[in-house]
Amino acid sequence: MTRVVCRTLAPRLGDPAANQRAVVEAIAAESAAGADLLVLPELATSGYCFASREEAGACAVAADGPELAQWCAAVHGRTVVVCGFPERGGDGRLYNSAALLDAGGVRAVHRKAHLWDRETLFFTPGESPPPVVDTAHGAVAVLICYDLEFPEYTRRAARDGADLLAVPVNWPLVSRPPGERPPEVVIAQAAARVNRVVVACCDRSGTERGQAWTEGSTIVGADGWVLSCDAREGRGAVSAVVDPAVCRDKQLTRHNDLFADLRPALYGS
Amino acid sequence: MTRVVCRTLAPRLGDPAANQRAVVEAIAAESAAGADLLVLPELATSGYCFASREEAGACAVAADGPELAQWCAAVHGRTVVVCGFPERGGDGRLYNSAALLDAGGVRAVHRKAHLWDRETLFFTPGESPPPVVDTAHGAVAVLICYDLEFPEYTRRAARDGADLLAVPVNWPLVSRPPGERPPEVVIAQAAARVNRVVVACCDRSGTERGQAWTEGSTIVGADGWVLSCDAREGRGAVSAVVDPAVCRDKQLTRHNDLFADLRPALYGS
Repeated sequence: MTRVVCRTLAPRLGDPAANQRAVVEAIAAESAAGADLLVLPELATSGYCFASREEAGACAVAADGPELAQWCAAVHGRTVVVCGFPERGGDGRLYNSAALLDAGGVRAVHRKAHLWDRETLFFTPGESPPPVVDTAHGAVAVLICYDLEFPEYTRRAARDGADLLAVPVNWPLVSRPPGERPPEVVIAQAAARVNRVVVACCDRSGTERGQAWTEGSTIVGADGWVLSCDAREGRGAVSAVVDPAVCRDKQLTRHNDLFADLRPALYGS
Repeated sequence: MTRVVCRTLAPRLGDPAANQRAVVEAIAAESAAGADLLVLPELATSGYCFASREEAGACAVAADGPELAQWCAAVHGRTVVVCGFPERGGDGRLYNSAALLDAGGVRAVHRKAHLWDRETLFFTPGESPPPVVDTAHGAVAVLICYDLEFPEYTRRAARDGADLLAVPVNWPLVSRPPGERPPEVVIAQAAARVNRVVVACCDRSGTERGQAWTEGSTIVGADGWVLSCDAREGRGAVSAVVDPAVCRDKQLTRHNDLFADLRPALYGS
């Protein structure tokens, strides 16, 4: 069984040192408290509402630099961590990235492939499917925010063997009818159910340059139902215990299998 | 503006004549009452829980036969109708099909491409993408039940120009947490939102050979919110007025377009 925790953070634009401390503290505290998989927000070390490419670049770090090494050093035990950060690539370009890491080091880096709105002004889109990493707590795929809204991309992660999708997000608050969940959560529920995977989204809080956030961290079970979703309780974290083994059985009925039932010849345009 | 109506029916296995009468009466009544697009259930003329291929075959009809001609003759005005029926193909095979028709005749026939459970024992799967028909009330695609649970297939319909997905269904009742919508509706909501299309699902009622149904006829707007969903009110119909023109604008932000943002090179396996 895997104990999944999404810990909402409130990064402060222009204070990467404070943001780095908050990430390190969250990793240390949640891993000590027994999280198996800890998901933290998109761009957790920088904030989001950049005014310019220069501002984004000023807080970008290398995936093999000291900042992420600090994250790894903060991990107690066998916790796997997924956290977003602005990456300066070896090519000098900026990427909206997320690392999957444990006490032994960085295991994978995902560069957001579907950029949202003004991100296109600052970041270069990634060119890869979601990485899927076999961990002690299940096979974990990493996607970032708007990536999740492309069912073709979540399907790819699931077909590549993911049991759990770990999704750092920054969800700008949008209107929704009274009583409804955030629209991104509805999409996460569908992605979970049509692929039989767990989806763990970690959102941010803290109004930034007038932008409010959904604060919608949510863990969705492999049958598509929300397991935990109110990060404003307690210490700003949601958690759930899930069974990755359940995600490996794609059989729906004696005659149906989620992946065997696909008809790819009918989907191309 | 398009007035969409989904009228829940309760087909009776073994009484195709009574089922045919119910379909004709529903078409006549709803078209006279001003429906622009009327969606009726999957296999509306036969019922669903066949014991054998012979039983399914006994009520199968040709798409160009007198039964569907009666449907067309029952249409008042410019109503477009989508309704499911067991089809006997020119090849002698049985298909779980749905026709799109108006007063002028049958405009398209869709053969369900994703068969559910024991349907695989009786029916041959279709070999085509969803048909998309330009009508006076918008471009309407036809899918059937489990077809809707493949986001690649709903995407294909949307990319082929559909404004509205008309989906005859027979949703077997499954358990869900208290207060939650049927899981198929959550999937329909996500399909609507990631494609900006209207999704109109018409379910059935009437316990059949011990099988209970969700009775979950639902119309989802192009932003993914449920517009109408309780068929047990009134005459067993849900209705909503939608604007197909809204579905043709896929722009989300100055920098984002639902289809232009797709990264097909990253989705293949």
